[in-house]
Amino acid sequence: MMTTPKPSAKTPDTAIYDRRESGVRSYSRSMPRQFNRAQGVWMHDSEGGRYLDFLSGCSSLNYGHNHPVLKQALMDYIASDGVTHALDLHTDAKTDFLQTFEDVILRPRGLDYRAMFTGPTGTNAVEAAIKLARKVTGREMVIAFTNGFHGMTLGALACTGNAGKRGGAGVPLSHVSHEPFDGYFGDEVDTADLLEQRLADPSSGLDAPAAFLVETVQGEGGLNAARPEWLRKIAAIAKKHGALMIVDDIQAGCGRTGGFFSFEDMGFTPDVVTLAKSLSGMGLPFALTLFRPELDVWNPGEHNGTFRGNNHAFVTATAALREFWADPSFADDIARRGGILEQRLERIARRHGLSTRGRGMMRGINVGSGEVADKITGACFDEGLIIETSGAHDEIVKVLAPLVIDDETFNAGLDILEEAIAEAIAPVDDADTRSERKLNVAA
Amino acid sequence: MMTTPKPSAKTPDTAIYDRRESGVRSYSRSMPRQFNRAQGVWMHDSEGGRYLDFLSGCSSLNYGHNHPVLKQALMDYIASDGVTHALDLHTDAKTDFLQTFEDVILRPRGLDYRAMFTGPTGTNAVEAAIKLARKVTGREMVIAFTNGFHGMTLGALACTGNAGKRGGAGVPLSHVSHEPFDGYFGDEVDTADLLEQRLADPSSGLDAPAAFLVETVQGEGGLNAARPEWLRKIAAIAKKHGALMIVDDIQAGCGRTGGFFSFEDMGFTPDVVTLAKSLSGMGLPFALTLFRPELDVWNPGEHNGTFRGNNHAFVTATAALREFWADPSFADDIARRGGILEQRLERIARRHGLSTRGRGMMRGINVGSGEVADKITGACFDEGLIIETSGAHDEIVKVLAPLVIDDETFNAGLDILEEAIAEAIAPVDDADTRSERKLNVAA
Amino acid sequence: MMTTPKPSAKTPDTAIYDRRESGVRSYSRSMPRQFNRAQGVWMHDSEGGRYLDFLSGCSSLNYGHNHPVLKQALMDYIASDGVTHALDLHTDAKTDFLQTFEDVILRPRGLDYRAMFTGPTGTNAVEAAIKLARKVTGREMVIAFTNGFHGMTLGALACTGNAGKRGGAGVPLSHVSHEPFDGYFGDEVDTADLLEQRLADPSSGLDAPAAFLVETVQGEGGLNAARPEWLRKIAAIAKKHGALMIVDDIQAGCGRTGGFFSFEDMGFTPDVVTLAKSLSGMGLPFALTLFRPELDVWNPGEHNGTFRGNNHAFVTATAALREFWADPSFADDIARRGGILEQRLERIARRHGLSTRGRGMMRGINVGSGEVADKITGACFDEGLIIETSGAHDEIVKVLAPLVIDDETFNAGLDILEEAIAEAIAPVDDADTRSERKLNVAA
Amino acid sequence: MMTTPKPSAKTPDTAIYDRRESGVRSYSRSMPRQFNRAQGVWMHDSEGGRYLDFLSGCSSLNYGHNHPVLKQALMDYIASDGVTHALDLHTDAKTDFLQTFEDVILRPRGLDYRAMFTGPTGTNAVEAAIKLARKVTGREMVIAFTNGFHGMTLGALACTGNAGKRGGAGVPLSHVSHEPFDGYFGDEVDTADLLEQRLADPSSGLDAPAAFLVETVQGEGGLNAARPEWLRKIAAIAKKHGALMIVDDIQAGCGRTGGFFSFEDMGFTPDVVTLAKSLSGMGLPFALTLFRPELDVWNPGEHNGTFRGNNHAFVTATAALREFWADPSFADDIARRGGILEQRLERIARRHGLSTRGRGMMRGINVGSGEVADKITGACFDEGLIIETSGAHDEIVKVLAPLVIDDETFNAGLDILEEAIAEAIAPVDDADTRSERKLNVAA
Repeated sequence: MMTTPKPSAKTPDTAIYDRRESGVRSYSRSMPRQFNRAQGVWMHDSEGGRYLDFLSGCSSLNYGHNHPVLKQALMDYIASDGVTHALDLHTDAKTDFLQTFEDVILRPRGLDYRAMFTGPTGTNAVEAAIKLARKVTGREMVIAFTNGFHGMTLGALACTGNAGKRGGAGVPLSHVSHEPFDGYFGDEVDTADLLEQRLADPSSGLDAPAAFLVETVQGEGGLNAARPEWLRKIAAIAKKHGALMIVDDIQAGCGRTGGFFSFEDMGFTPDVVTLAKSLSGMGLPFALTLFRPELDVWNPGEHNGTFRGNNHAFVTATAALREFWADPSFADDIARRGGILEQRLERIARRHGLSTRGRGMMRGINVGSGEVADKITGACFDEGLIIETSGAHDEIVKVLAPLVIDDETFNAGLDILEEAIAEAIAPVDDADTRSERKLNVAA
Repeated sequence: MMTTPKPSAKTPDTAIYDRRESGVRSYSRSMPRQFNRAQGVWMHDSEGGRYLDFLSGCSSLNYGHNHPVLKQALMDYIASDGVTHALDLHTDAKTDFLQTFEDVILRPRGLDYRAMFTGPTGTNAVEAAIKLARKVTGREMVIAFTNGFHGMTLGALACTGNAGKRGGAGVPLSHVSHEPFDGYFGDEVDTADLLEQRLADPSSGLDAPAAFLVETVQGEGGLNAARPEWLRKIAAIAKKHGALMIVDDIQAGCGRTGGFFSFEDMGFTPDVVTLAKSLSGMGLPFALTLFRPELDVWNPGEHNGTFRGNNHAFVTATAALREFWADPSFADDIARRGGILEQRLERIARRHGLSTRGRGMMRGINVGSGEVADKITGACFDEGLIIETSGAHDEIVKVLAPLVIDDETFNAGLDILEEAIAEAIAPVDDADTRSERKLNVAA
Repeated sequence: MMTTPKPSAKTPDTAIYDRRESGVRSYSRSMPRQFNRAQGVWMHDSEGGRYLDFLSGCSSLNYGHNHPVLKQALMDYIASDGVTHALDLHTDAKTDFLQTFEDVILRPRGLDYRAMFTGPTGTNAVEAAIKLARKVTGREMVIAFTNGFHGMTLGALACTGNAGKRGGAGVPLSHVSHEPFDGYFGDEVDTADLLEQRLADPSSGLDAPAAFLVETVQGEGGLNAARPEWLRKIAAIAKKHGALMIVDDIQAGCGRTGGFFSFEDMGFTPDVVTLAKSLSGMGLPFALTLFRPELDVWNPGEHNGTFRGNNHAFVTATAALREFWADPSFADDIARRGGILEQRLERIARRHGLSTRGRGMMRGINVGSGEVADKITGACFDEGLIIETSGAHDEIVKVLAPLVIDDETFNAGLDILEEAIAEAIAPVDDADTRSERKLNVAA
Repeated sequence: MMTTPKPSAKTPDTAIYDRRESGVRSYSRSMPRQFNRAQGVWMHDSEGGRYLDFLSGCSSLNYGHNHPVLKQALMDYIASDGVTHALDLHTDAKTDFLQTFEDVILRPRGLDYRAMFTGPTGTNAVEAAIKLARKVTGREMVIAFTNGFHGMTLGALACTGNAGKRGGAGVPLSHVSHEPFDGYFGDEVDTADLLEQRLADPSSGLDAPAAFLVETVQGEGGLNAARPEWLRKIAAIAKKHGALMIVDDIQAGCGRTGGFFSFEDMGFTPDVVTLAKSLSGMGLPFALTLFRPELDVWNPGEHNGTFRGNNHAFVTATAALREFWADPSFADDIARRGGILEQRLERIARRHGLSTRGRGMMRGINVGSGEVADKITGACFDEGLIIETSGAHDEIVKVLAPLVIDDETFNAGLDILEEAIAEAIAPVDDADTRSERKLNVAA
């Protein structure tokens, strides 16, 4: 397969969008093309252009666009008049999904979770998770972390760190305390210890929490990866203080960081896990909240949603689990590709005196400011590479390539990125300059 | 087409659900079958049973299950590798939808709205609506109404009346005042007047509202239909007090009450409208928040969501708009069928001393208690009719048949309902008994 | 005693106030005099002026200024080095107060309350009352009433209706629902019935309340007097729904409406009562929260305050209880004087087509607007009568004369008021005009 | 004067308290005596006992009980029928107070503050301060500190750290973030730097604050004294981020730490200062909120309170300012006595391997646990010394002796304390034991 993108020069007519779509739209502003077809790692536009996708729907397309196996499964289902919408009635598609999830994901990992089919958006899965934690514990306060992102509905938004998104609420966002994530105060300060001291102190003003809501790698917040030992400490603190540990695995899960769950082999088991994004495998709306059976204190219908039974998504999700997770070779592939990504980003970082972030196939490079990052992603797009930024100041250029990308294409995309960075940031020549730059590019 | 349901007697094995699905599931408890196929007004189960669907995914399947035109459009799109997921990038499918929505819905009705593609759940559309109202007005309090239902995420849940659902929040639900809906205190008291008096009184303790959030017919709250004059008063009060009027048309819109919007021809134009449920036409997750262009004060990305670009839903929604709304005959059909429904329910009500509720194809009958209603819907299901309840005490048996149902099948379903009611409630013989029953069945 | 006021013409130098006191000051703006002496019903200014006090410190001076018996008791106490400040340690002064309160107030009325000495302000007594109700019930929401006033600290302010005062909070005032007071929607609508309907409806959105917080006569809110039958209904609703009934008797208590408590002989017993204002008898800071012994679930120190043991106030309060409440003649006197007040205000109201409000020695006249009321109170002040306004629009001229005023002086003061009203509002000549005016002066 | 206490052995009859006072009472439980007279540093009980007061009404009696000069001023005022209660009307007593406060306190210190006479409790002064900050900034969140105590009404309570007191609220305490006080994480971590990092980070989740509310020495929270450089940093951070710096000087002010204000000579000027406790000089209820004139954005009456014009307190406060603050010798005396206190506590601490806290005449000793502290204060009381505890676990024995105590009596009291500690805690013999104990007594 040809590995080179072929971008279009022409911006299509956007009059209907200008006239009828809200100004809240965002990606279409920096990528002003109209896309009409997508396959694997490629998106095609209406002018015949072809783009390599290093955004992957913000990690919603871990298996690439319209994977042929998933696509065929869905077409067969539709052709046979399989149930499309059935609220939460039992359907063949749902049965298959649950059984496959048990067989392929839970059993091999020794995990015992119940699945709650929430409204099919990540934010809804998070809302369900914190509602459950509040119900189970009878407490109101949730501890979330700096730079965390968990969604845009009011309950999840209260757990989100970003000031711009928080400001959209128009009401005070209450019942959440935002605590420093791992490494927030540098390598010398263990933020879990600081947190534990305050929780153990009856005069700290920090109320007893219902839950700790944490991403193992912060997708929107700058690809900060927590150390396993820090996560284990948080799990232990949660247990000690009678709170639930919720891992929001919406962006980091489904293989993005290596395993199906981002917390595998770390020595702790979350009480609650949220999944969405790549869960359906094909980008269809689907979200799950998983929790230990003992925590399943819901009354029937206490949290529901019209589209909680998106059977199309069940079909593609089941096909994806079977295709990718039934044997361990996929995880091995991710690990290998993650290694390539790490090496190439590290090389770029060293050359320009920058630093890298992340884990597995969820990595980025801190280019010092949002302005520089925008310049870089803009230059990439001009070369046919779709890539975006992350972080408090949008200063992290993040690589979220499809996990199934072949090495040649992957490297071709990284070449574009490397060149764009080289154009935007002069290389570091000697030690003095390097340390100087570090100061300038600090967040 | 044969119009008689053929229910299965056998309950399928549910071990995987018992083991792996949360106890929050609800409909599958009262309808313990596994469904594997659905077409038009019929659902089929794994035992060969056939069920007439008077629930329609809570009004998400107004055009029936898997309508052939919509189905074909979707299969063609998938076959051609049409973009499935693209965040909010412009796609052919999205362009088509916006253009068709403008041509078929907005222009003919003289409406000038901008569309915000929120996360594809109704609750997300409501959250966006109230966030916008709070941002536009700089105020925090939203006025919602008794028996209103608007969703399960924290912002929408605060606007929801039902105590059981509210209780799930685990935190106080703030910044909302729940005011009596039209007719709440009987025919003599105009609740809009009571509200206006308090809003005009600087010592009433009722803060100036950001918005009024109202359903024209309360889908979950008991099919209470507001009078047009009451809605006009609320619109006028909103305008006078600098608040936005938001019509939550998620359940009552898309033809359910007659027109595409439930407020057509009522003499007022909402500032904001929310749509979801039947918007995609095929039951796929899709939600929209519409608002006057002057209100479009969003910053890019200030409210977003991974699945806000569900292109499959754009495809089927576009096909549905063209198929059903391009000429006025569909609305005429709904009006005619709504008339049938009204007559049959009224006849039942008269016979048993009951009362009816609702408007268009969104009607129900108050059978006095949730226990009686459950008995009736259970008896219907045993005869192969899927039908559910609504209201504060689940005391309203509600008919949400597909709008496209043919008269013969419709009547066959209503026959089952009539018989079930007759078995559950003795007929009224004379005036004395009737007035007595009225007391017994009062909510 | 000479009964005629002798106002000063000269405004004293206020430079120190302009320079050093916050602009939040209020009464000194409409009454720009410097007072240096006060005895009984009279206040004296630095220019030799003498003013009849129909404001009585907003009902904090029910026994007049510096009553000789109270004054002597206090001077004796100070001279003997009686304990002034002792936190909540037992002192002779506190023992005497508690014993006298039991003997003179509780026992004769068959009331069994425990006394909580809160910080010595009314708002603190209210905060303690609602904290207790929330603790006892485990619920968060308090029902307060339109036009209610309960204080300015955040918890009490949330229960206050006035928008201007609420606005000072700078944060949303949560966990309170403001419901229509008795008569709010006119004589035909019983607002207790409306409230009961919503509380009984699980879909009304009105959460189960911890307490009902009610004034029997709304001091700041316009002297609206609740009917005993309405108050009994509220007490019954509270009981039925597991909430506490709190009577805020801070302004209406201590004899202002006739008995020591404003709810005496009304056929219900509040669960909690707050007292302050005239409790010390001499205007010294003192507040109490009373509650049924079964409700005394406080932990030691769970609500406290440095000045909760204001022993000077205990001394004067004890003297006042003995002087005024040990035999029933004082209540008889108040009833008689209240009758004089009623007759005179009614006469004025009839003459000018106005309406009166209130009960006992807590009455006012609605003059239609705050502007007219200001004109009237300004004219009174020019004649040496201190009198103020009340109500949502400050449209009620309220008479809060000392309860101990002699008839001659009382009538002299009311003459001044009558004349001022006559100058501000033309008399009504015939029926037509009268009904017209009624429209104009409606709140 | 004889310097030895003479405690009573007999506990008086407390039946009236058991019957009629709420269980919320606290000090009277550990000090079961009835006090009837108090002079200077001594309290006398009804059995003839005499107690040395090292509690001083929690620093409300800095000049001792019933100081003769203040007492005489008050008696003269009462005898002359000086105005006792006048809401916020101008009175001679108020004029004198404002003028004296300007002359004796503000001018010599180069401070330009306006005075707001709030309800006469500390908590009310704090509520006014944070309301003002929210109004001025248009922001809602206030930053308070671990172990901070600011009062018991809802707004101030939200700023208080203690979990027991917070729990009394019965509602979530919102709009406040509790941040680590100076030294909270040990000497190596500058908590102001941690705070600044989060405030500067738009993704930290820490909203922009309206104010920083800080005690320079935390009276209830364990006598933690902030370093001047930390306070200056907080002042600078507040300024940089557009927030007000509020110093709550209710317990540490009025000479307790040396100067009239606790922040004198520290190189910063708070935007807002709260005063109460010893402000009246005699223990009478009085509170003030001071702020820069530019911040005086209050509307008339926007925050008020019935007892905001406690003229008796104005009289004694004015006398106290003149008696103690007109020349610098008093501050010198405090400094000298504070030195004695420091030396004696340090000696005790060294002997027992303990640590001391505090500044000026506001110091304590950490005895490791609340149980040990209770044993010590109980033993002191048996010897006639009134002394109390402080801190998250009540583990700090705090000395709040009257500032006017003579050296002999002071030392006599400290002898009692020293002996009580020696009985409760064995002395440290060698280095090993000492370091071991340190672990055991850590908070």
